[in-house]
Amino acid sequence: MPAPSLSLAELGGLDERRFVDALGSLFEHSPWVAEAAWRRRPFGSVAELHAALELAMREAPRERQLELIRAHPELAGREAQQRTLTRESSKEQASVGLDRLTADELETLGRLNAAYRDRFGFPLIVCAREHTKDSIIAWGVARLAHSREQEIDIALGEIAKIARLRLADLVEEPS
Amino acid sequence: MPAPSLSLAELGGLDERRFVDALGSLFEHSPWVAEAAWRRRPFGSVAELHAALELAMREAPRERQLELIRAHPELAGREAQQRTLTRESSKEQASVGLDRLTADELETLGRLNAAYRDRFGFPLIVCAREHTKDSIIAWGVARLAHSREQEIDIALGEIAKIARLRLADLVEEPS
Repeated sequence: MPAPSLSLAELGGLDERRFVDALGSLFEHSPWVAEAAWRRRPFGSVAELHAALELAMREAPRERQLELIRAHPELAGREAQQRTLTRESSKEQASVGLDRLTADELETLGRLNAAYRDRFGFPLIVCAREHTKDSIIAWGVARLAHSREQEIDIALGEIAKIARLRLADLVEEPS
Repeated sequence: MPAPSLSLAELGGLDERRFVDALGSLFEHSPWVAEAAWRRRPFGSVAELHAALELAMREAPRERQLELIRAHPELAGREAQQRTLTRESSKEQASVGLDRLTADELETLGRLNAAYRDRFGFPLIVCAREHTKDSIIAWGVARLAHSREQEIDIALGEIAKIARLRLADLVEEPS
């Protein structure tokens, strides 16, 4: 990852449009999260900024949360094969080798993705940078046994983690 | 789990001591997190209350965060065998069968716990209620390859998840 390029002070001075331009990609295809967080400024720390972003997501209506979840690509799925992943997702999936699976691994993950989407109606979301291929698959299988409510909660938690790491790539902590 | 027994409005009316009495157990052996969060009241939603708790943890000095991490028991470790787990941890570990492992499973997890503590100097923390025995072990093995900084961040994330679920057991969302 390149060094963070934006300071917290710079971010604090942005109007809504520029703030959303800068942080809109933290939540996959869902700039509305940054938009809602902007209203909670000022932010005294990167942790406070992240808390505002997560809160905007957690307090959104359930339908909005489901749209956010559904805006995510599958792991090593169609978007990856067609090279239509967002730049961030592409890096994250590559960081654990999901862009160079063997045929067997691809089949295992493909079956898991299909079973998961079939059961819950949305894609399996894992903060890939915290995992390996094997632990993603083991956790995915475990998650098939959950209720839909539980999986919505876990998916939002993973999305918040993904956003935390993307934010750390972007914004410098004041020293 | 019993039905939540405290409303958000009731919680909002508590003085610092009673607030910490009510929520001190959300963060294992670490009532200082609730204490710091109390200063951020009022809380308009359970999500806001959780955000304040997580922020208190995230903004604490690194030494304090490490104490919090180290205050956690191992999964199916010494505390579990000596029956000295907190009530919350005991329920959480039992919910995925960590209280009734086979001798082989106990040995596998014991070796993982030891390797993890040896490498990072603190126990492996996983939000057990989101996992199965197998996915805990697969993720634990994956995490051995991380840097210490990464594992501190993941541990804090798991602790925030554990607190979110404990909070949902305790406090009713206003309807």
